[in-house]
Amino acid sequence: MDTEVITVRTGSQATVVDITDRASAFVRGRGDGLLHVFVPHATAGIAIIETGAGSDDDLLTALDSVLPADGRWRHRHGSPGHGRDHVVPAFVTPYASLPVIGGRIALGTWQSICLVDTNGDNPTRQVRFSFLPG
Amino acid sequence: MDTEVITVRTGSQATVVDITDRASAFVRGRGDGLLHVFVPHATAGIAIIETGAGSDDDLLTALDSVLPADGRWRHRHGSPGHGRDHVVPAFVTPYASLPVIGGRIALGTWQSICLVDTNGDNPTRQVRFSFLPG
Amino acid sequence: MDTEVITVRTGSQATVVDITDRASAFVRGRGDGLLHVFVPHATAGIAIIETGAGSDDDLLTALDSVLPADGRWRHRHGSPGHGRDHVVPAFVTPYASLPVIGGRIALGTWQSICLVDTNGDNPTRQVRFSFLPG
Repeated sequence: MDTEVITVRTGSQATVVDITDRASAFVRGRGDGLLHVFVPHATAGIAIIETGAGSDDDLLTALDSVLPADGRWRHRHGSPGHGRDHVVPAFVTPYASLPVIGGRIALGTWQSICLVDTNGDNPTRQVRFSFLPG
Repeated sequence: MDTEVITVRTGSQATVVDITDRASAFVRGRGDGLLHVFVPHATAGIAIIETGAGSDDDLLTALDSVLPADGRWRHRHGSPGHGRDHVVPAFVTPYASLPVIGGRIALGTWQSICLVDTNGDNPTRQVRFSFLPG
Repeated sequence: MDTEVITVRTGSQATVVDITDRASAFVRGRGDGLLHVFVPHATAGIAIIETGAGSDDDLLTALDSVLPADGRWRHRHGSPGHGRDHVVPAFVTPYASLPVIGGRIALGTWQSICLVDTNGDNPTRQVRFSFLPG
């Protein structure tokens, strides 16, 4: 298994960052197998969605509605409402796995691999790519 | 890695389609390993749930509640409310992975592999099965 | 692929059980590869979240809000509101996959592997660990 950790700039606001190009570069030339994408953080996730047509913002809106950043959470470290960031990974998992065929991720036309980070307290994040040859 | 793309009829309404039998047929005789199920579409997901006792409809009801098909979404292509279909895969991921033991998927008694498609604009969908030998 | 089924006590209330230590013991000494965690039950899931600072309870609160244990569900077997337990796995999937490097799960500092069980009717659960060498 080949594995590599990249750094992704996420800034100080909740954000969805498209990392498809970096994942594609990681698997290029590798043949067939499984790409595994993993975020080693407790307040971030990986989503496979369309980007560039509003759905990335829509996902953040949905998370604000499903997991409001208010005072309901027991976890009280960090900024007010931060407790909800710790629940995000239960719904938007910190890993994804995708088939690779001939060194290319077999994504559909409108699918992108995205790092979802609702926690503005960490301006950079790590993402681990791993490739399991088939 | 052996891989195969099947076509699944999803019709013009939101639907949950049980594809367990087709997945089971794909892994039959393969020994031990990992089955990977992937939908190369931006408005569909894979869920492992019970079917035949109402939970498939319950899932669609839950998605209507969590991600209402109304005017709140920035993504405005397609039918009204279609923007929410693009957020579905962040919650119901377009992939799943399952252990295979002796050519059989090690599912529990009440678990089925389901294609979840809230988008009635595409009457057929593709699903990619891949098998990683262990 | 090496695989092993463990039994986890979940009791008669909705609960989040940290199984990181048992997963770590399973992969110890195995080198590099992928850990697959799977629950063969239709009313339980696996979440990668922080434990011990309230987020485990916060997850149960969030699930009560997103999928209320009330009379709205078509699935009507078991206790009142039990239908929602069958929708939980569509959101908190019954599987997870994690990279293993040098026999250690490459989790971040605050990440734990958790069995999420909202169904108090089953006091014990099975979890299958599988390891795919890379």
